[in-house]
Amino acid sequence: MHLGMSVSDSDVSSFTPLVVLELADDTKAEAITWLLNRIRDKQQNGGAELLVDQVLLPVQDDQKSNPNVFVVGSTLQRLLNGAEDVGLFKEFQDGTMRGFTYANRESFRDFEGDGQAFLSDAECQYIIKHELDTLRAKNEEHVPGYPKLKLYPGKSVVRRLQSKGILIQYFPLHNKEDLKRLSFSWYKKIKLSFQPLDDIRCYFGEGLALYFGFLEYFTFALVPMALIGIPYYLFDWEDYDKYVLFAVFNLVWSTVFLEVWKRCSATLAYGWGTLSRKKAFEEPRPGFHGALGFNPVTGREEPVYPSSKRQLRIYLVSVPFVLLCLYLSFYVMMVYFDMENWAISIYTENPNFASGILMFVPSIIYAVVIEIMNLLYRYAAEFLTNWENHRLESSFQNHLVLKVLVFNFVNCFASLFYIAFVMQDMVLLRQSLATLLITSQILNQVMEAFLPYWLQRRRNKKVHKRMRRLMGDKELPLLEQVQLETDMNTYLGTFDDYLEQFLLFGYVSLFSCVYPLAAVLVVLNNITEVYSDAFKMCHVFKRPFSEPAANIGVWQLAFETMSVIAVVTNCALIGLSPQVNAYFPESETQLILVVVAIEHVLLAFKFILAFVIPDVPKRIQVKLDKLEFDSLEALKKRKILEVAETRNTWNK
Amino acid sequence: MHLGMSVSDSDVSSFTPLVVLELADDTKAEAITWLLNRIRDKQQNGGAELLVDQVLLPVQDDQKSNPNVFVVGSTLQRLLNGAEDVGLFKEFQDGTMRGFTYANRESFRDFEGDGQAFLSDAECQYIIKHELDTLRAKNEEHVPGYPKLKLYPGKSVVRRLQSKGILIQYFPLHNKEDLKRLSFSWYKKIKLSFQPLDDIRCYFGEGLALYFGFLEYFTFALVPMALIGIPYYLFDWEDYDKYVLFAVFNLVWSTVFLEVWKRCSATLAYGWGTLSRKKAFEEPRPGFHGALGFNPVTGREEPVYPSSKRQLRIYLVSVPFVLLCLYLSFYVMMVYFDMENWAISIYTENPNFASGILMFVPSIIYAVVIEIMNLLYRYAAEFLTNWENHRLESSFQNHLVLKVLVFNFVNCFASLFYIAFVMQDMVLLRQSLATLLITSQILNQVMEAFLPYWLQRRRNKKVHKRMRRLMGDKELPLLEQVQLETDMNTYLGTFDDYLEQFLLFGYVSLFSCVYPLAAVLVVLNNITEVYSDAFKMCHVFKRPFSEPAANIGVWQLAFETMSVIAVVTNCALIGLSPQVNAYFPESETQLILVVVAIEHVLLAFKFILAFVIPDVPKRIQVKLDKLEFDSLEALKKRKILEVAETRNTWNK
Repeated sequence: MHLGMSVSDSDVSSFTPLVVLELADDTKAEAITWLLNRIRDKQQNGGAELLVDQVLLPVQDDQKSNPNVFVVGSTLQRLLNGAEDVGLFKEFQDGTMRGFTYANRESFRDFEGDGQAFLSDAECQYIIKHELDTLRAKNEEHVPGYPKLKLYPGKSVVRRLQSKGILIQYFPLHNKEDLKRLSFSWYKKIKLSFQPLDDIRCYFGEGLALYFGFLEYFTFALVPMALIGIPYYLFDWEDYDKYVLFAVFNLVWSTVFLEVWKRCSATLAYGWGTLSRKKAFEEPRPGFHGALGFNPVTGREEPVYPSSKRQLRIYLVSVPFVLLCLYLSFYVMMVYFDMENWAISIYTENPNFASGILMFVPSIIYAVVIEIMNLLYRYAAEFLTNWENHRLESSFQNHLVLKVLVFNFVNCFASLFYIAFVMQDMVLLRQSLATLLITSQILNQVMEAFLPYWLQRRRNKKVHKRMRRLMGDKELPLLEQVQLETDMNTYLGTFDDYLEQFLLFGYVSLFSCVYPLAAVLVVLNNITEVYSDAFKMCHVFKRPFSEPAANIGVWQLAFETMSVIAVVTNCALIGLSPQVNAYFPESETQLILVVVAIEHVLLAFKFILAFVIPDVPKRIQVKLDKLEFDSLEALKKRKILEVAETRNTWNK
Repeated sequence: MHLGMSVSDSDVSSFTPLVVLELADDTKAEAITWLLNRIRDKQQNGGAELLVDQVLLPVQDDQKSNPNVFVVGSTLQRLLNGAEDVGLFKEFQDGTMRGFTYANRESFRDFEGDGQAFLSDAECQYIIKHELDTLRAKNEEHVPGYPKLKLYPGKSVVRRLQSKGILIQYFPLHNKEDLKRLSFSWYKKIKLSFQPLDDIRCYFGEGLALYFGFLEYFTFALVPMALIGIPYYLFDWEDYDKYVLFAVFNLVWSTVFLEVWKRCSATLAYGWGTLSRKKAFEEPRPGFHGALGFNPVTGREEPVYPSSKRQLRIYLVSVPFVLLCLYLSFYVMMVYFDMENWAISIYTENPNFASGILMFVPSIIYAVVIEIMNLLYRYAAEFLTNWENHRLESSFQNHLVLKVLVFNFVNCFASLFYIAFVMQDMVLLRQSLATLLITSQILNQVMEAFLPYWLQRRRNKKVHKRMRRLMGDKELPLLEQVQLETDMNTYLGTFDDYLEQFLLFGYVSLFSCVYPLAAVLVVLNNITEVYSDAFKMCHVFKRPFSEPAANIGVWQLAFETMSVIAVVTNCALIGLSPQVNAYFPESETQLILVVVAIEHVLLAFKFILAFVIPDVPKRIQVKLDKLEFDSLEALKKRKILEVAETRNTWNK
């Protein structure tokens, strides 16, 4: 066993540091010693068997720096064993993806020598995170030095420390060389090319790579729409009747697009080994609290929170709150229409250039207000969902996504629905749509990338200067890196990025037949979005832990729902068009019945199409079947051998 | 090894016979010898390791009897090993369902002594069927004695013999005592009670038990509708406006009913061990043919048939044929309306009792014609789907179900749709609905149970008399039983039974608001249906092999689709009602828009409800999670031990 204070005092640690742990600066020494021992202890004794070292950041004159920063690494052997623990899938000799096992390591394609280059950086860091997360309390009753911080056998130590604020954060370190190489192939090349998804996946993990894959796919899918949209814009600006054809194309496109994406994502996920990977048992999220009880699945002690209480919180507080916010959003919308009317009245009284510009001001103000409301609501939704005290991260995420989506949908599109179907003013609809779309794009780019980058740059310079001043010319790459990255903002996951794409998809598909140029704008936006997102991942935020993902999850459903709503709105818009009205001069009833019938047929067609197109390409399905068949056969063979052996034993 | 002709000549075999094999009576002796040897051979040598004996039926004066009838049985040890092969789930000590393994046999709840009563009869027969089906050719190039009957390594011997007509049939034997007990508790008791689903499952397997479970559930679910329907019938026969409320109730009911059924079926399937059981690799169906190639999944030799050819057959022949049949069905419908008009004209000219009766005649004739067309179409669909040459039984079934459902739906309901929405004659709709429903019920009961029973009874008597005459008073229970059951009709699966319930569901839900009595009629029909179906399973048909099933499969989807269509039709009927029309006296357009809006809300509500209600009850989900968690933990523990062992080996 390691002795008490074995924390190294050397500046640079003796192993490759992969993950940084930052504890609160007033953490008691005995707690630190205990934690480090548990991390270093052998697996047989319930430890994580990882390497850990303290990083002593230089004391500064003006600002006190946190002494409790540690870097964690691991031996190669431990990482390979960990890869088996987390159920990593790797490419086998025969080209299929199989669950990695240490015993069969030589049979995997990229395993050469001792397997130094077998695991990507992101995988190593993910394995370390997993091992830290599953480091469980043995028979400690509380964290040493903190009698109030109760522990019970099986409780994840890291989660307990995290939920009580002793563990401030832990995050993976950037690998400067890899990062340089990645950023070059990703966004520094001038020539247009596909994104290096495999490299992104190696560096940032599957979750993020899938987001960038989706972003690229979505943008490419919009190109035909954009190309068709341009002549519509150039030649027929005021002739909105011709858009019927465009809307029909749009409907078919949006269904096919989403179905084909499922197949693409399955292909990507198969190649990355996440498609057939089994989900590990999900631990309670760090913030979850309740009276101590027993989990019926694991049989372990665990906080238990009655689901009825949670339901009460959801239905008595969250739902009314969301409804209130929706009401507020409607109220703001009505104020916007008042402003709009006022601007129009000024223009009609005195039509000159200044009042012409004024016409656009209400829309721009409204777009800014919408963005601000979305932002504020986002915080409120997160707070509320946290307070609902969900046991699992996935359930938390689902409730958060639902809350945010409903509000953002209403907030962004309510005014457009009102203009389209209550006011039936197609010119205003087009103008509003354009203003909302353009303003929100500009705001998003600024808020998302340029502002954080600018802040980060200032901070970087300061840290760099300070380090130089303190340590003279000594080479301190690791120290400086740890100091810099500790202060960087944390990337909160792909939620906001997907949300933005979801809203853009709404602008493109819901009212496409009145404003075909929307697709062009979204394509332009997404091209810069790729660059700014790539840049922010590489230089603005802390490196995130890799997240194994087999698909884009709940967002697939969200996009599909949007495309169903798009069928309804586009059919209604077509029904309102003068051209279609002209076919039924004597009977409005007939017109409505025909439009409704067509809408039903389109919806049925959509569902049948979604049902008929297989979600996994045949090529991949064959490989999956092969894997399953092989494991069944292996089991059968083993069984027959066993039976034969038993019989031989009897015969002796 | 067994010697050539080891076929026993004794009348009654020395083991419990479970399955009967009937070969063609002109089968060559060397083929028989070879087959019996393969069945008896040890598993290590690629045999099935089962017991098999010839049953020599007495030679008859008038009719020659087939000498090549064999009974198959098994040792207990072999059956228990087989239970592991097929992946049977049984109840474990702790009350959860776990995959049976021979090594852990003592830990399963009902395993007592040597495990004599552990496996049900149906399970034993299913295991024997599985072992026979997976008896594979080794290096035989053809069936001995039949140089044209090519074999290749890995080809299922039984399937090859079956597809070439040498193996005429193989089926499980009834167990007379169990059957007596089952029929008593099932349909001979006078008092009304739930069906003995567990006993049905033990005797006939999960597939059939789920059908009877569904039938019972569906009938119970209709009772509230029937109870509400009776006063509507008694007091308001001609006042169809009040049915709006009834329709709304109906819509909510049909959604909830189908969602709750999923939960019930999951509970049943969990208790029967089929819910978490993995599907075995699916072999090509016996009739499948093609050029010999390699299966990409198994790597084995197998017939390969290009999917493009199949697509051609489907789109160039099957689809046009189905469309032609639909056209024919419409044509018949128009003839019916002509007859209807003619009957009405006679009644209006001369309204007396005879012409009043005549009013119903066209509907009755039409109902009979519909049933005949359904029957003929059923044969055609089966022929066509067979000709499409699907590789898998499941794909065959899906294409057959789709063909049959589309045609039956149109054939049965087209006239009702026409009357409701084109003629808008609600009185005729009600009358047509009643006549169709009642006639088809009566026809079904006669065709399905009474006729086969009557034929079977005659045959039974004849066989019984003949046996007595030939063998005098000697006790010949097995011989007689084999002879009787060989001649019985084969039960072709639950397809027709589900189809009937599907059409009844359509009658109840599509136009419920004009004829609330439909539910009453269906309840009455289903009560007799339970009895007649139970009777026909026990006494009219050969015992079917048990079919492990976790749910009602494609029928769940079919019923859900019907309930979606029901939303549309009921909303439309409500929109047509004079009462609702009265609310919008000045504007028909407004009325339609409101009805369409309500319909969309109802549809959205339906989808959300289906999404929100979990398909598996929480109690069962916890057990499933526990099983998965335990197996993960076991794997982890084994791994840590292995690592420790490896380390110890190194240290030595």
